[in-house]
Amino acid sequence: MTGRILISEVGPRDGLQSIAAIMPTEAKKAWIAAEVAAGVTEIEVGSFVPARVLPQLADTAEVVAYACSLPGLTVAALVPNLKGAVAAVEAGAHKITLPLSVSETHSLKNLRRSHAQVLEEVRAIGAYLRSLPAAQRPRFEGGLSTAFGCTLEGPVPLRQVLGLGEALMAAGADEVGLADTTGYADPTAVRERVTRLREVVGQHAFAGLHLHNTRGLGLANVLAGLEVGVTTFDSSLGGLGGCPFAPGASGNVVTEDLAFMLQSMGLETGIDLPRLLEVRTVIQAALPGEPLYGFTPEAGLPLGFKQTEGGS
Amino acid sequence: MTGRILISEVGPRDGLQSIAAIMPTEAKKAWIAAEVAAGVTEIEVGSFVPARVLPQLADTAEVVAYACSLPGLTVAALVPNLKGAVAAVEAGAHKITLPLSVSETHSLKNLRRSHAQVLEEVRAIGAYLRSLPAAQRPRFEGGLSTAFGCTLEGPVPLRQVLGLGEALMAAGADEVGLADTTGYADPTAVRERVTRLREVVGQHAFAGLHLHNTRGLGLANVLAGLEVGVTTFDSSLGGLGGCPFAPGASGNVVTEDLAFMLQSMGLETGIDLPRLLEVRTVIQAALPGEPLYGFTPEAGLPLGFKQTEGGS
Repeated sequence: MTGRILISEVGPRDGLQSIAAIMPTEAKKAWIAAEVAAGVTEIEVGSFVPARVLPQLADTAEVVAYACSLPGLTVAALVPNLKGAVAAVEAGAHKITLPLSVSETHSLKNLRRSHAQVLEEVRAIGAYLRSLPAAQRPRFEGGLSTAFGCTLEGPVPLRQVLGLGEALMAAGADEVGLADTTGYADPTAVRERVTRLREVVGQHAFAGLHLHNTRGLGLANVLAGLEVGVTTFDSSLGGLGGCPFAPGASGNVVTEDLAFMLQSMGLETGIDLPRLLEVRTVIQAALPGEPLYGFTPEAGLPLGFKQTEGGS
Repeated sequence: MTGRILISEVGPRDGLQSIAAIMPTEAKKAWIAAEVAAGVTEIEVGSFVPARVLPQLADTAEVVAYACSLPGLTVAALVPNLKGAVAAVEAGAHKITLPLSVSETHSLKNLRRSHAQVLEEVRAIGAYLRSLPAAQRPRFEGGLSTAFGCTLEGPVPLRQVLGLGEALMAAGADEVGLADTTGYADPTAVRERVTRLREVVGQHAFAGLHLHNTRGLGLANVLAGLEVGVTTFDSSLGGLGGCPFAPGASGNVVTEDLAFMLQSMGLETGIDLPRLLEVRTVIQAALPGEPLYGFTPEAGLPLGFKQTEGGS
């Protein structure tokens, strides 16, 4: 296995939206800058949702604008609707992701919208984006959440994943990704769902995998994804935002462990691991008492560990 | 991926030898019995080392004898030398494992013996075992520890692993296994070292993988092993014996998470997962305050999770 893998950091969005504490804007900027300095090239920095829903992310526009000033960084943001997409574009985001929960029960509960309503929003966003000059147009991902199972519905049928993936593309998304929001994925399911979805939407329209470590399978699922050619994986520094040791925890894949695994395997990530490990101190200082996760940060790098060529 | 996978529980040996507390003999028996009731068919129940070295395992002979009374269980024990092997045979063990550290520095420090001295011991054990009637003869594994790297030497050359694997077989071992004692393995190394070692010792002389989760790669490394046809994996209930959140921790792969991953993938383990999860209470009662690990036990089984056919 060789090649370049993109680690897409989602901590400033997925991590921070899941904890009670509100990180100061300046700390977010310091975090993002430190990750970029460590070689991270894509970060989802916030979500354009109303501040009353997620006060932790109320400063997303400012954070996006700041992140866009960092050379070489792809700045991503979550948007729940057209209004959020407009705000993201105005702030300068390079990529926007609209989540669609494959479990309609989860969609109704989480976004308070049916699949049809979400797809209508995707169409509106697609039309809006097409009206923009190409230089201002962000990449538009439809993110299939609860794509491996749902805490409300249980198993999620593959045909529903495929049907909604097709529908997202037809509605105007540039690409679709698969998210294991609930930690229900296993390596066999990852291989099958990625392979089948790519057959439906096209090889180049598969955005990547957003995996959680709820049941400890996060990196095994990454490996399964690598084996079927996935080259983009979301993760969160320090696993921020989901305590893996609490029932129902979300537990994002930990960026540090992911980067360590990929580099151990000889894959290029562009990340300087020792510097990445230091970024934790930025978060710890800004969120005292907030638990951070990850095995590699605690154990340290192996004696004689060599970064891959693209690793620094 | 289909078929039957053997989970070889090593907690009563590898777990208990690594913690300060001494588990009462009756609690060990209750633990072993509870795992057997949950469908576990192979357990390494102790180590025949002098009690002054590992007082936690001073009752190994009694525990082996008890475990042998449980129908269907393969009872394994670690032995450091001929004296230990004789004691294991007298207690009735079905399988004995002698560890040989691929890193000679580690061998000298851990066992206080050079490779040549360990191999001499293997020859003596081999001769002893061949002198026994077949019915009394346990299976004899040479366990290549620090096979993926060493905290003292750093990288461990593949040729050294292969050479010592061959030497163990020539000295009289029935089979050889690979142990990532230090948590240095990655999926690429697992695939390569397993494949190459089997070429050297023969397909049927490969015993299995003993993996640690020190840097969070335990289950990804299991997946890599599965992909090259490994069917036996060691693990420890509750990850007992190595705090994965402390520097230098050993952190065995957690039996509960391993069983969950395998069954999620449709592989048969013979294990009843809900019953396995209950075994933790036996350990918790006997070792109050001792931390147990594992993601699946905390998150619980997914809604609608179905055991594989061989899973109960």
